[in-house]
Amino acid sequence: METTFNRIRGGVCAPAGFRASALACGIKKQHSDRLDLALIVSDSPTVGAAVFTRNRVRAAPVRLSQEHLQKSAPRAIVANSGNANACTGEAGMEHARRMAAAAARALGFEMVEIQVCSTGIIGLPLPIERIEPRFQELVEGLKKSCSDAAAAIMTSDTRPKSVAVEYRDEEGTPIRVGAIAKGAGMIQPGMATMLCFVTTDAEVSEAEIREATREAVDMTFNRISVDGDMSTNDTVVVMANGRAGNRKIHRTKGRRAFRAALVEVMGDLARKIVGDGERVTKVVDVRVKGARSDEDAEKVARAVANSSLVKCSWNGSDPNWGRIIHAVGYSGADIEENAIDIRFDDLPACRGGLVAETALSELAAVVRRREFAVEIDLNLGKGSFTMVTSDLSPEYVLFNREEYALTRNKWGK
Amino acid sequence: METTFNRIRGGVCAPAGFRASALACGIKKQHSDRLDLALIVSDSPTVGAAVFTRNRVRAAPVRLSQEHLQKSAPRAIVANSGNANACTGEAGMEHARRMAAAAARALGFEMVEIQVCSTGIIGLPLPIERIEPRFQELVEGLKKSCSDAAAAIMTSDTRPKSVAVEYRDEEGTPIRVGAIAKGAGMIQPGMATMLCFVTTDAEVSEAEIREATREAVDMTFNRISVDGDMSTNDTVVVMANGRAGNRKIHRTKGRRAFRAALVEVMGDLARKIVGDGERVTKVVDVRVKGARSDEDAEKVARAVANSSLVKCSWNGSDPNWGRIIHAVGYSGADIEENAIDIRFDDLPACRGGLVAETALSELAAVVRRREFAVEIDLNLGKGSFTMVTSDLSPEYVLFNREEYALTRNKWGK
Repeated sequence: METTFNRIRGGVCAPAGFRASALACGIKKQHSDRLDLALIVSDSPTVGAAVFTRNRVRAAPVRLSQEHLQKSAPRAIVANSGNANACTGEAGMEHARRMAAAAARALGFEMVEIQVCSTGIIGLPLPIERIEPRFQELVEGLKKSCSDAAAAIMTSDTRPKSVAVEYRDEEGTPIRVGAIAKGAGMIQPGMATMLCFVTTDAEVSEAEIREATREAVDMTFNRISVDGDMSTNDTVVVMANGRAGNRKIHRTKGRRAFRAALVEVMGDLARKIVGDGERVTKVVDVRVKGARSDEDAEKVARAVANSSLVKCSWNGSDPNWGRIIHAVGYSGADIEENAIDIRFDDLPACRGGLVAETALSELAAVVRRREFAVEIDLNLGKGSFTMVTSDLSPEYVLFNREEYALTRNKWGK
Repeated sequence: METTFNRIRGGVCAPAGFRASALACGIKKQHSDRLDLALIVSDSPTVGAAVFTRNRVRAAPVRLSQEHLQKSAPRAIVANSGNANACTGEAGMEHARRMAAAAARALGFEMVEIQVCSTGIIGLPLPIERIEPRFQELVEGLKKSCSDAAAAIMTSDTRPKSVAVEYRDEEGTPIRVGAIAKGAGMIQPGMATMLCFVTTDAEVSEAEIREATREAVDMTFNRISVDGDMSTNDTVVVMANGRAGNRKIHRTKGRRAFRAALVEVMGDLARKIVGDGERVTKVVDVRVKGARSDEDAEKVARAVANSSLVKCSWNGSDPNWGRIIHAVGYSGADIEENAIDIRFDDLPACRGGLVAETALSELAAVVRRREFAVEIDLNLGKGSFTMVTSDLSPEYVLFNREEYALTRNKWGK
């Protein structure tokens, strides 16, 4: 039986026992009233897990959060936008520690229970003196709504991103999973950081929450492309507090539905991340099938989804299958040129490596849509892989030209 | 003693015994007077070598030229622009064969002595009926100048590219090496094909010309970036006819100077390819040193040279070292964040992973130049690697949006 996931309101505050809060500290610009500091807290003890950037250059908050996670479950997340606190050396580590310590003090938690996240410009010092004194106020503002927190983690995102679902386990107990996120990659200037915070009232084992988190990230955030870049700050944190009172999820028991719920929530936010931003005009599913292996299918999907030339053609609503087959050819996957079929939605553009009979006007009508799918069938086996990606617009380039100088100028250096 | 390479005029016609010719066949648009068919011929027998695209999707002329090269040295090259004859199936192979056969007939050569190259739109049939009847005329037009041939292989290139050098071997015999090329990658729309034809009057062994060609391509064309794409048609052909009368180059004898001459010629054209085009505003040398190995240095150089975000920042003359260190971090190379130094020309932007003291205005003045170098010192070992790359401009995206529909419309389909 398929589990039904009902969409509900409330984001990270939808599950029982979670509250959130946000403030404007002027991190990017003093006296700005833009929300830039967020707090998410579980009222009762948790188990949890996190997945961090694989970038070898890691921001101070990432390093600190990794340390904390080894010692404790995460019971609160503090996150700021406007400054990534990356490439900031020992001073940056000290600033991250002071953020965690201030949050822990105000909440009455252990410092190791705090996950710290930062997003924004890198290489400039975090204005810790504007952040540190605000934690009492932040804690006093905790409430059953995360709309401010979702706004406070935004950088170039044009809208806050949240989602929540409720489902019933096999015994009929309702379980909720909620999340907020901010955008990444092609949609995003600067360091292209992706942050996602997930809460659930499920009772779940420590081993299961770890495995489920890693698997869900792999099925969702690791399948959106963007520009191939990987931020110094990317972080996904999941906290579970067991308030649903369900029979504990571990090994096989209830595991499938719980994992599906995580994938549902993260997948929704992953797609919102790709689609956000005035500078992206298209959200494109690249579906590869018929590969000799899933690995080969993934190579093809990533090559196509990351090709600047392919992305440019989508921006112009140009059904240029030649550029797609060309990316297939250099992907490193095992392919047979004369076996390749390429479709835009259901319309064949290329059949057996040759131009198909579909009229150009029909193909162009598909590529003009805001959302469409490119299906690439290698016709060699059963391997498949799907990515969600975007076009590449002139506005993206314009938007990404001057961030460093502009930000550094604001700091007067 | 260092060999001196004197720049001379004449491109592929500078070495003794080579002639070239070109015509307008209307390959892209009937009745156009744009040169689009080129021929380069050695008047006497040759040895030769070629390097072809590693793309698994290979254009018909690439496959035919590979076949020919296995059976014979290349004595003539015929190349057209306007249509890549790629993804054209059996009909495309037949068209490539007819081009080779027509050239061989008109020249009185064996068909296997002909290398065939095509560049332009892919997936549309080559208008062979416009090309095939013109070979007699093409052969009659052969002369000691390659300026028409260099123009005829252009696609979106804004100017023809040629170079030639003369040097003396250890016995004082003058040897000439010349070449023409057309652009690729970021500079280029559509299939981003790179073509380069090299001639020399050196007397050289077959084994040596093969090894020297592969090595020179690896030192030059494989170190320019662009957009990470690899065309279905990329081809470098080298022909040597021995007319210089030098002592035969083989194994150690004269080898070093000959290889240096090839690198000199190909390197010059590689840099011209990156720099060509109104849409590119910057040519940037990415010099990586201090890596644990040359392989690690190469990973870092390629990650930086291909990062869209880094390229956008250069377009805006923004000395954004944060994006550079971020690409270093995800390159896959072994690095220590707090050991990394980054310089724009000689000015430190980042020292030990932290912002350096250089004033922003000084850094910005470097990045505003049309040519500058980014030096990345990992400070871990002796590995090094250099790439030549470009910025990413809004105009590049605009330029690459609509090629397929525009070209297909011209063909009335």
